[in-house]
Amino acid sequence: MRDTAWKARILRAAAELFAEHGYHGTGIAQLEEAVGLRRGALYHHIGSKEAVLFEISTAPLRLMVEAAQAIEERVAGPEERFRELARTLLDNVAEHVLEWTVHYRDFTALTGERRREMLELRHRYERVWWRTLTAGMATGVFKPVPEPVVLKGIMGMFNYSYVWLRKDGPLPPGEIADAFCETFLSGIRA
Amino acid sequence: MRDTAWKARILRAAAELFAEHGYHGTGIAQLEEAVGLRRGALYHHIGSKEAVLFEISTAPLRLMVEAAQAIEERVAGPEERFRELARTLLDNVAEHVLEWTVHYRDFTALTGERRREMLELRHRYERVWWRTLTAGMATGVFKPVPEPVVLKGIMGMFNYSYVWLRKDGPLPPGEIADAFCETFLSGIRA
Repeated sequence: MRDTAWKARILRAAAELFAEHGYHGTGIAQLEEAVGLRRGALYHHIGSKEAVLFEISTAPLRLMVEAAQAIEERVAGPEERFRELARTLLDNVAEHVLEWTVHYRDFTALTGERRREMLELRHRYERVWWRTLTAGMATGVFKPVPEPVVLKGIMGMFNYSYVWLRKDGPLPPGEIADAFCETFLSGIRA
Repeated sequence: MRDTAWKARILRAAAELFAEHGYHGTGIAQLEEAVGLRRGALYHHIGSKEAVLFEISTAPLRLMVEAAQAIEERVAGPEERFRELARTLLDNVAEHVLEWTVHYRDFTALTGERRREMLELRHRYERVWWRTLTAGMATGVFKPVPEPVVLKGIMGMFNYSYVWLRKDGPLPPGEIADAFCETFLSGIRA
């Protein structure tokens, strides 16, 4: 196998182990066995256990940042942008539920530069939602709301979906995103 | 110290260790050292490591179920009940953020009867919100919404708060709950 194929295989096996046993609860010996490589070869491909955690837990976040920035450039209306961000987020969660499980379980185990980079990615992602909210408020499409709290609520509503959302679940992620948007945009009061 | 005091001390120390290193990543030796008890005495008080995880991760959930059922009996109007459930939930999260961190990190490590009991508690809790939503829809206070999805959204918005909510944060939990309720009840569209 080529180096990139080995690396993908190691990351997949590690994601499964970390999601089940936690990062701290997974030993390098388990990873050796799951992948079928000795320690030396394993470290050649991955560098360190923390580097694996970093790659697993930031990969879907990087995709989200890129997608969100593309949406921001392409979609001008705050409400339409809100809806596209929502759909893209739930598609991403459904596609990478294993990686998100690892992310939310163990992102606190990242240290130093890796931790800073992960937090910086989160921040860049959330800023796109923030700018969407404030643009909507500035143009009168959205009501004045306390943005920091409402942003936390939005992120919670969508991010927490890694616990229950599945690609082959009863509703497609896009429809769930639309239902969340309706609730957020127009409320549930009659 | 009396047995109950020892037990409280062990649960507190274990909650701190589990929240930081994860359940699987915490050894009994670390717990012995943190509490200052030998293994035999430790097991006398707690039974097993999984029993400790169970107590830590279900204690705040039990309080929430009791509080929610009391609110359901006391508050008739669906909207008022919604608001009280929200406030009580965020107060509980802020008060027990360590236990909730352990809960969301490692509830999948609970097995057999303990897992069933934890899921049953969650279910009983969510049913109170569910009945509040459906009562509101039946009486015309709330719009017809797809309850299962909206319930997931509500739970996500509030539960995910264990990641960022702090008792001594910039806003009291009750005010955050009110802001979340406003967003859910009347939406953010102008």
